[in-house]
Amino acid sequence: MTPPTNRWVLYTAPNTCALATHIALREAGADVDIVVLDFKAQQQQSAEYLAVNPKGRVPALKTPQGVITETPALLAFVAQSFPQAGLAPLDDPYAFAQLQAFNGYLASTVHVAHAHRFRGARWADDPAALESMRAKVPQTMTACAQLLEEGLSGPWALGERYSVADAYLYTVASWLEGDGVDTGRFPRLMAHQERMSQRPAVQRALAEAAPR
Amino acid sequence: MTPPTNRWVLYTAPNTCALATHIALREAGADVDIVVLDFKAQQQQSAEYLAVNPKGRVPALKTPQGVITETPALLAFVAQSFPQAGLAPLDDPYAFAQLQAFNGYLASTVHVAHAHRFRGARWADDPAALESMRAKVPQTMTACAQLLEEGLSGPWALGERYSVADAYLYTVASWLEGDGVDTGRFPRLMAHQERMSQRPAVQRALAEAAPR
Repeated sequence: MTPPTNRWVLYTAPNTCALATHIALREAGADVDIVVLDFKAQQQQSAEYLAVNPKGRVPALKTPQGVITETPALLAFVAQSFPQAGLAPLDDPYAFAQLQAFNGYLASTVHVAHAHRFRGARWADDPAALESMRAKVPQTMTACAQLLEEGLSGPWALGERYSVADAYLYTVASWLEGDGVDTGRFPRLMAHQERMSQRPAVQRALAEAAPR
Repeated sequence: MTPPTNRWVLYTAPNTCALATHIALREAGADVDIVVLDFKAQQQQSAEYLAVNPKGRVPALKTPQGVITETPALLAFVAQSFPQAGLAPLDDPYAFAQLQAFNGYLASTVHVAHAHRFRGARWADDPAALESMRAKVPQTMTACAQLLEEGLSGPWALGERYSVADAYLYTVASWLEGDGVDTGRFPRLMAHQERMSQRPAVQRALAEAAPR
């Protein structure tokens, strides 16, 4: 049996993008402990957590070699660490790049657009500016959803083959309704949400990361 | 000789993050044509370019298989396509994840903070909100520079070994002064800038992407 110090630990919080990595780890069958932080109690800014991840964000994955952050990096890492799980096209640089470009768009454009709803204080101090940011979120997230919808040509994010990109798409698309997007306009995205919600790894990750 | 249709084409524009991929391609010795878009003439929104990249952004790399976007995806793709160039730790998933986490932080946090200076209209419409965003850029970019400075332990972004992450760090850190950051506080980042500016691949990419 692996000694406790050698186990991986995923730091997550409810309703965050860390769900994507959590799902990927469960799909891979990884032997990992889950630590759920309480963002309402600002646990991500505690000295204890900042020692794990100085950025004060989730996800962070503690491994015996060190801590890994950033969702696209973690998703590729999980896929590469468990090649037998078939969670990414590891032997085809072009196909792998398309997976990474998909994840990169979710991280740098879609998640960022979403963050202007509740996290505007990262980028402006004036309360009126924060309100102006919040007001535009339905529009920006609708544009993102439109681009994602048009790109969905198969049952899964990359087509016929399930991958870590599906865990990320599921996580980010689950924010659309709360962001004021008319999700009825995006039937492929919604069918993907439904398809994902049937997977045991998704159900397990949601249960493990539920608020305590 | 490779027929013209099989050549790669990088779409870039001056003073954009596409410089990172451009440098990486020149470091790798890739056989690639460079197309410089004129953002002042809104060429990135032309029908011709949107047919290449519907997101209307740079970088985009056209290959015989298809078009790749998103800087972290492109940097990993270049490194994987030219393994002999030694631009990434391709055989070590943990080290590769650290490279990707570094690139992901630049893409999703640092570049996004920088974009609030000139691209605030992506996230708000009120002119006062855009001004409030611009006002905070020196603060957010200083915080990013601080975290990057603390992480620089060797001559290169990942330590002793040069990688595609250096091309990206060079590109993003070159924005600090214009963003109102007191760069004198970050001697390691500035030494990295200087070290990079000596490299022939950097000089060539800068010359090829200069405004026409």
